[in-house]
Amino acid sequence: MKLDLEHGVVEMAHGGGGRAMAKLIETIFLGNFDNPLLAQRNDQACFTMQAGRVAMTTDSYVIQPLFFPGGDIGSLAVHGTVNDLAMAGAKPLYLSAGFILEEGLALRDLAQIARSMAAAAREAGVFIVTGDTKVVEKGKGDGVFINTAGIGVIPDGVAPSGERARPGDAILVSGTLGDHGVAVMSKRENLAFEVDILSDAQALNGLVAAMVAEVPDIHVLRDPTRGGLAATLNEIARQAKVGMELDERAIPIKGAVRAACEFLGLDPLNVANEGKLVAICAGDQAPHLLAVMRAHPKGADSAIIGRVIQDADCFVTLKTAFGGTRMVDWLTGEQLPRIC
Amino acid sequence: MKLDLEHGVVEMAHGGGGRAMAKLIETIFLGNFDNPLLAQRNDQACFTMQAGRVAMTTDSYVIQPLFFPGGDIGSLAVHGTVNDLAMAGAKPLYLSAGFILEEGLALRDLAQIARSMAAAAREAGVFIVTGDTKVVEKGKGDGVFINTAGIGVIPDGVAPSGERARPGDAILVSGTLGDHGVAVMSKRENLAFEVDILSDAQALNGLVAAMVAEVPDIHVLRDPTRGGLAATLNEIARQAKVGMELDERAIPIKGAVRAACEFLGLDPLNVANEGKLVAICAGDQAPHLLAVMRAHPKGADSAIIGRVIQDADCFVTLKTAFGGTRMVDWLTGEQLPRIC
Repeated sequence: MKLDLEHGVVEMAHGGGGRAMAKLIETIFLGNFDNPLLAQRNDQACFTMQAGRVAMTTDSYVIQPLFFPGGDIGSLAVHGTVNDLAMAGAKPLYLSAGFILEEGLALRDLAQIARSMAAAAREAGVFIVTGDTKVVEKGKGDGVFINTAGIGVIPDGVAPSGERARPGDAILVSGTLGDHGVAVMSKRENLAFEVDILSDAQALNGLVAAMVAEVPDIHVLRDPTRGGLAATLNEIARQAKVGMELDERAIPIKGAVRAACEFLGLDPLNVANEGKLVAICAGDQAPHLLAVMRAHPKGADSAIIGRVIQDADCFVTLKTAFGGTRMVDWLTGEQLPRIC
Repeated sequence: MKLDLEHGVVEMAHGGGGRAMAKLIETIFLGNFDNPLLAQRNDQACFTMQAGRVAMTTDSYVIQPLFFPGGDIGSLAVHGTVNDLAMAGAKPLYLSAGFILEEGLALRDLAQIARSMAAAAREAGVFIVTGDTKVVEKGKGDGVFINTAGIGVIPDGVAPSGERARPGDAILVSGTLGDHGVAVMSKRENLAFEVDILSDAQALNGLVAAMVAEVPDIHVLRDPTRGGLAATLNEIARQAKVGMELDERAIPIKGAVRAACEFLGLDPLNVANEGKLVAICAGDQAPHLLAVMRAHPKGADSAIIGRVIQDADCFVTLKTAFGGTRMVDWLTGEQLPRIC
């Protein structure tokens, strides 16, 4: 009963809790995610933690297509959850991984996704310590959905949180916006642009560690994923009961992404990112924080893009390149469904 | 943009990261799961933990039908993950919840599922502290899939693990077997039996706390879910490199479940349970452990069902009621797909 990784597909039996599932897990997951905690082979992982503050998060990934320029659902599922932990200022430690497989999924694709997850976890310095595999009938899923949950430890004195944005604070981003959404969209729609656009999906925990080491009192950290920068800033403004003023000329967007957005009728501020963060800190600490971010390989294109102001209406506005002002609105839904 | 909880359905916009998603989360999830950590409304929950051993686990739930006699996918998603933590001897603390909703799901059903989750969490004494909501197009999911991950703390001196079963150990179960699988199957197939069969889905952390308080050195704890008792014991036998001998007459099975299994052509030992546990402990501690289990409301039908023996082949065998012996085999797949 060896798995045929070249031509085999996922069958209902692979989710049944019997021999077939054990074989799938051993062949595809345990080998790739290899670590002593996962090797315990119980229905849970057990480890020792020191006293202190802990962050816990979860995300399910339903992106289509499963493989896109610059990543796949496997690497994304690691990067996304690592980043949600990092946005608490935490050092991510352990991830869980839950797979919902659709009957008929090529085992070759599943193995590739598992390899990507393993590589992303290694690069981010986290371990996938426990997991679960379910199979649903063909037509009741979409290839593979992955849930990752994670925990991490938060250094003393670090407590970024959405409601901590204060008038006078500076708003920074760690790099160019819109790359992930446009890369996925171009693949989905089979569009070819002159310049290849790759997803920015990457783990930001190293960048965040460098940031909080120098500026522990960062008020807010958040990654502008679904809904893009616009949704993220509107959420924070509402949580903190403040307004925000952005400077369009300061917002880094790649020329190719800007052109693709114009072509597709998208506003890059609404497009999802998977390897960028927004940081909000006291105005007088912003220049130092910016320097720290720019000095890190994952923050080379960082910029101060605006400031927090007092505003009972919690509006986020943008000074345009032409000297006007417009609202940065929060869309009802998402221009690009299933982007993560 | 108020949600119509009576006639509304899930739309793609509810997964878009924008206003519609915020409204869905506020209306359906935050209200039901209400707790201070979730109310932080960041992409992660932050809390303080004491030094010590921690258990972490995850499970995705894809059960069909979503509502079944004795529970629904919401209560199951809490019970299942609480139980996986309890099987490490841990006191469960915090859960995450990731939802993958299919476009078109009735909001009324989603709200009912959220209420069930909240009630199950309250009863088990755990908090749902962080979550995620995704929406997939109609035909790309199946109503709702839920992932829950959880963490808990393990008391000193407690370390149950599959490989710790030793020849001479006793094998106990905490109650009747097969109730969950038969209840779900009867609903799915629209079967009516003379006696209503309810799922046994329930949280076992209270029972486990009572057990480890009296017998800290329980060697193995595991809940016989997918694949039933047969798969669970075969897994443990393989992990611990031992054999097992069961006594059929000692295994508690309700008459109605036994009759339904005969009718459906199922072996109750292969049928999933969601509110029972297997415990393996030193033979001389078994009578005391049994008494503790029987004294707890969730363990009233507990029984010693067999013993661990030396066997290089790791076979699990059953002395039948008629005096014969048969193998308790581990199925390749599952007789009943999507049972959890």
